[in-house]
Amino acid sequence: MKLPDSLVDTLHAVFGKEGCSTNEAKRLAYAYDNSRRNALPDAVVFAQEHPQIESLVRVCREHRVPVVARGRGTNTTGATVPVDGGVVVSFERMNRIVRIDPENRYAIVEPGVLNGDLQIALRPHGFFWPPDPTSSPWCSIGGNLACNSAGPRTVKYGSPRENTLGLRAVAGTGEGFRCGTYTSKGATGYDLTRLLIGSEGTLALITEATLKLTPKPTGLRTLRATYRDVSSAAHAVARIMAQPVTPCALEFIDDVALKLARDHGGDSVPVAGAMLMIEVDGEPETLPSAVEAVSRAARGDGLDELRVAQTAEETQALWSARKALSPAQRTISPNKINEDVVVPVSRLPELVDGIRLLSKKHDVLIVTFGHAGNGNLHVNLLPRDEAERERAHVCLAEVFALVISLHGTLSGEHGIGLVKREFMPLALQPSTLNLMHNVKAAFDPDGILNPGKLLP
Amino acid sequence: MKLPDSLVDTLHAVFGKEGCSTNEAKRLAYAYDNSRRNALPDAVVFAQEHPQIESLVRVCREHRVPVVARGRGTNTTGATVPVDGGVVVSFERMNRIVRIDPENRYAIVEPGVLNGDLQIALRPHGFFWPPDPTSSPWCSIGGNLACNSAGPRTVKYGSPRENTLGLRAVAGTGEGFRCGTYTSKGATGYDLTRLLIGSEGTLALITEATLKLTPKPTGLRTLRATYRDVSSAAHAVARIMAQPVTPCALEFIDDVALKLARDHGGDSVPVAGAMLMIEVDGEPETLPSAVEAVSRAARGDGLDELRVAQTAEETQALWSARKALSPAQRTISPNKINEDVVVPVSRLPELVDGIRLLSKKHDVLIVTFGHAGNGNLHVNLLPRDEAERERAHVCLAEVFALVISLHGTLSGEHGIGLVKREFMPLALQPSTLNLMHNVKAAFDPDGILNPGKLLP
Ligand SMILES: Cc1cc2nc3c(=O)[nH]c(=O)nc-3n(C[C@H](O)[C@H](O)[C@H](O)COP(=O)(O)OP(=O)(O)OC[C@H]3O[C@@H](n4cnc5c(N)ncnc54)[C@H](O)[C@@H]3O)c2cc1C
Ligand SMILES: Cc1cc2nc3c(=O)[nH]c(=O)nc-3n(C[C@H](O)[C@H](O)[C@H](O)COP(=O)(O)OP(=O)(O)OC[C@H]3O[C@@H](n4cnc5c(N)ncnc54)[C@H](O)[C@@H]3O)c2cc1C
Repeated sequence: MKLPDSLVDTLHAVFGKEGCSTNEAKRLAYAYDNSRRNALPDAVVFAQEHPQIESLVRVCREHRVPVVARGRGTNTTGATVPVDGGVVVSFERMNRIVRIDPENRYAIVEPGVLNGDLQIALRPHGFFWPPDPTSSPWCSIGGNLACNSAGPRTVKYGSPRENTLGLRAVAGTGEGFRCGTYTSKGATGYDLTRLLIGSEGTLALITEATLKLTPKPTGLRTLRATYRDVSSAAHAVARIMAQPVTPCALEFIDDVALKLARDHGGDSVPVAGAMLMIEVDGEPETLPSAVEAVSRAARGDGLDELRVAQTAEETQALWSARKALSPAQRTISPNKINEDVVVPVSRLPELVDGIRLLSKKHDVLIVTFGHAGNGNLHVNLLPRDEAERERAHVCLAEVFALVISLHGTLSGEHGIGLVKREFMPLALQPSTLNLMHNVKAAFDPDGILNPGKLLP
Repeated sequence: MKLPDSLVDTLHAVFGKEGCSTNEAKRLAYAYDNSRRNALPDAVVFAQEHPQIESLVRVCREHRVPVVARGRGTNTTGATVPVDGGVVVSFERMNRIVRIDPENRYAIVEPGVLNGDLQIALRPHGFFWPPDPTSSPWCSIGGNLACNSAGPRTVKYGSPRENTLGLRAVAGTGEGFRCGTYTSKGATGYDLTRLLIGSEGTLALITEATLKLTPKPTGLRTLRATYRDVSSAAHAVARIMAQPVTPCALEFIDDVALKLARDHGGDSVPVAGAMLMIEVDGEPETLPSAVEAVSRAARGDGLDELRVAQTAEETQALWSARKALSPAQRTISPNKINEDVVVPVSRLPELVDGIRLLSKKHDVLIVTFGHAGNGNLHVNLLPRDEAERERAHVCLAEVFALVISLHGTLSGEHGIGLVKREFMPLALQPSTLNLMHNVKAAFDPDGILNPGKLLP
């Protein structure tokens, strides 16, 4: 698509020479994301302030040209790939921390602030923002909000939906608006804030966020439990979640993943049928009883060994298996299919057993690990060649069907984007999807915001 | 309005003789709520299952007849008053606890279950559902969800929006749908669950809810701090919220309220410029350090006395002032105007000072107390006669203007309903209100669900 000259002129006027490009090299750099899908945008603009976004969406709406928001492109679902061309608006330069307000437990940030940079800025105040994707140093708050991204701490502290007070944004109509509050409580009209969170840039572009802060506990203890088999570990997860002390991380690693990590990461990775990494936090005086409560629940049929780290070095050593996992997978398959399904915690044993069977049936290597405390497992299919890749795709559909049959859902934290939208009818009734389409039209009547994403 | 015969016939067919009434006495009983506004519905129906609601909304939509959902009518904003007539659908008979699932930390309930009954049913499992309005024994979960109702524990555990996983509902189109998940995490499409929470029956009728449960800590300690003046107490609130131990209740009572309570409740109510009631919970071993941390923050300029209850009786005695407050207010003014504004915690001193000035300026008695940890104060205007009532209404508009100037909002937990919707443009920009109207149309294109509520 060639953009109309008048539109390009407006973009130049609004974003300036430095903030707007139709140069092919630049466009190529913004054509893809971590999904490895790609499609060339017709222009890239770099936002610096809210009014620019209003102008951008207005002029693009006039010309029915797609607008695709982009944080740092680390999402895994093709959510920032401009499949219909149009303008990619990058928020990487709109990255000021506007205000940190410890008394009121909030921070106001622009969307381009990196998650990791915010955490560093909050540290001296004794607070943190709970969403903690592994990609924290490289991903933006805007992306975190748009995907409802999470991480290990979510089991105790919640996802962006539980940790955001208000937003400023621009709808697909070109109208700027504020929603939510500066307070930790509110019952003044519809909750547009949570509606935008997880909407993957399809309803509105976020230009400012008021984030709810949580006091950072000063103590942390790390435990590692190994089990005879995945099923014993999955049962232990359910026991841990049924008692009052909620860990701030409860990560599961299956035997296939452990073997991979050991081949790659060496001896410090234990030989076991499955492993749990557990962390509890709190004020230092409270930690011994918390460790005791969680240990009691972790014990039970099938436990091989339970270790509590006593020093920072030991903590690091305990986490080594989990850390070795990402590079290990890459050595096996450059085409890994990275899913993040979620089921109620008590169905985890059935999920891991079912995946085991599907892996055999389709003869595809699958490693399973992740945020077990939320029932959220990364199910990574690792095809090594074209034939395996085809089988993996058939297998994937059966993984989703299994998850739905266990009352789970397609995604816990990565979102739907481009790659999972064909599966949405598996998870949602036609009436629910209809309402979502109506909501989309309410915010973006001409369908210019991130077309081709999220909704089938 | 006379309902069309064919509609009445359908209602009888769907709800049976026992479940449907056009009798005037019955209609009168469902004409009002705790706001003391009233308007006669044309029929009342008593729902027992989801499919009935689909039939109800379909037939009412056909005839463009309003449908007003009703839990137990305890709301204070006129939210269940059928101002345009039509059918009131009461959920009081749809009150089964479908399932309690401690392993997965959720309960599935019908909307008519009373909040208090659910808490009792959860107790043996060691869990609770955090939203705890004072009306807990008499109000329904459906009403709690529709108003985003909260209570003292919200400061630590959140409101219904943070404590609900999924819903089943019927939109204004008559279409039934499910939204949300059975899991504690999800990123599969738009968050319709939170959108319905707080929507006061204007988007969809809730027929089932999957509620997120929280383990009930086994220990609780109660503290009472009295201060020289309201401003010192308000500053202490901000200090308490800026340190890591979050209390599970942090209630404020001003001097006017204390005096009232003392006149009514007797000597056990302290004489003071202001008072904080503070509770901390946790496992018993952790309580001493929590009490210590909170006490440290409560101390400071203006503290008169800090007491920690050592026994259950002492705890009761400490709460006596708070308990005496409701009956005391009723003796003074049968027409109390009951507001629940909210401001960022650090602005509480300005709020209480400002309200003091407005009370003087308009010569109307105002008592101020409530959930200070969330910045959510009940500002109750107590006019004693017609002249005072008129002044109170002028004063109220200035209270709202003050709150907005402090970056607060109109309601923390009671919602908007009928009585506050004219003030919505004070709190929300026209563009935000526009989007809310679009969302309303997306769910309820003919505007039959609870007309005249929430949106101006
Ligand atoms: C190594 C690695 C580890 C990861 N680990 C995790 C993990 O542990 N947990 C997890 O949840 N995810 C994880 N991810 C995925 C990814 O990092 C997250 O989805 C992240 O939130 C994306 O942020 P981003 O800035 O890169 O956004 P992008 O990828 O640029 O965009 C993501 C989505 O957000 C939208 N968007 C971006 N900014 C805005 C805005 N201002 N307004 C509206 N919409 C906007 C985009 O349109 C797109 O739909 C990981 C990725 C990698 C590469
Ligand atoms: C003494 C007293 C103390 C109170 N204390 C508090 C308090 O501490 N905190 C607080 O937040 N509130 C409090 N309230 C207000 C009130 O109790 C709450 O708003 C409560 O949630 C209302 O529940 P209900 O069942 O009475 O709902 P109703 O009053 O019947 O209805 C309230 C709203 O919910 C809608 N609704 C009801 N059921 C459904 C459904 N199934 N689907 C869709 N919409 C539905 C109605 O249409 C209406 O808009 C108090 C009230 C009283 C009388």
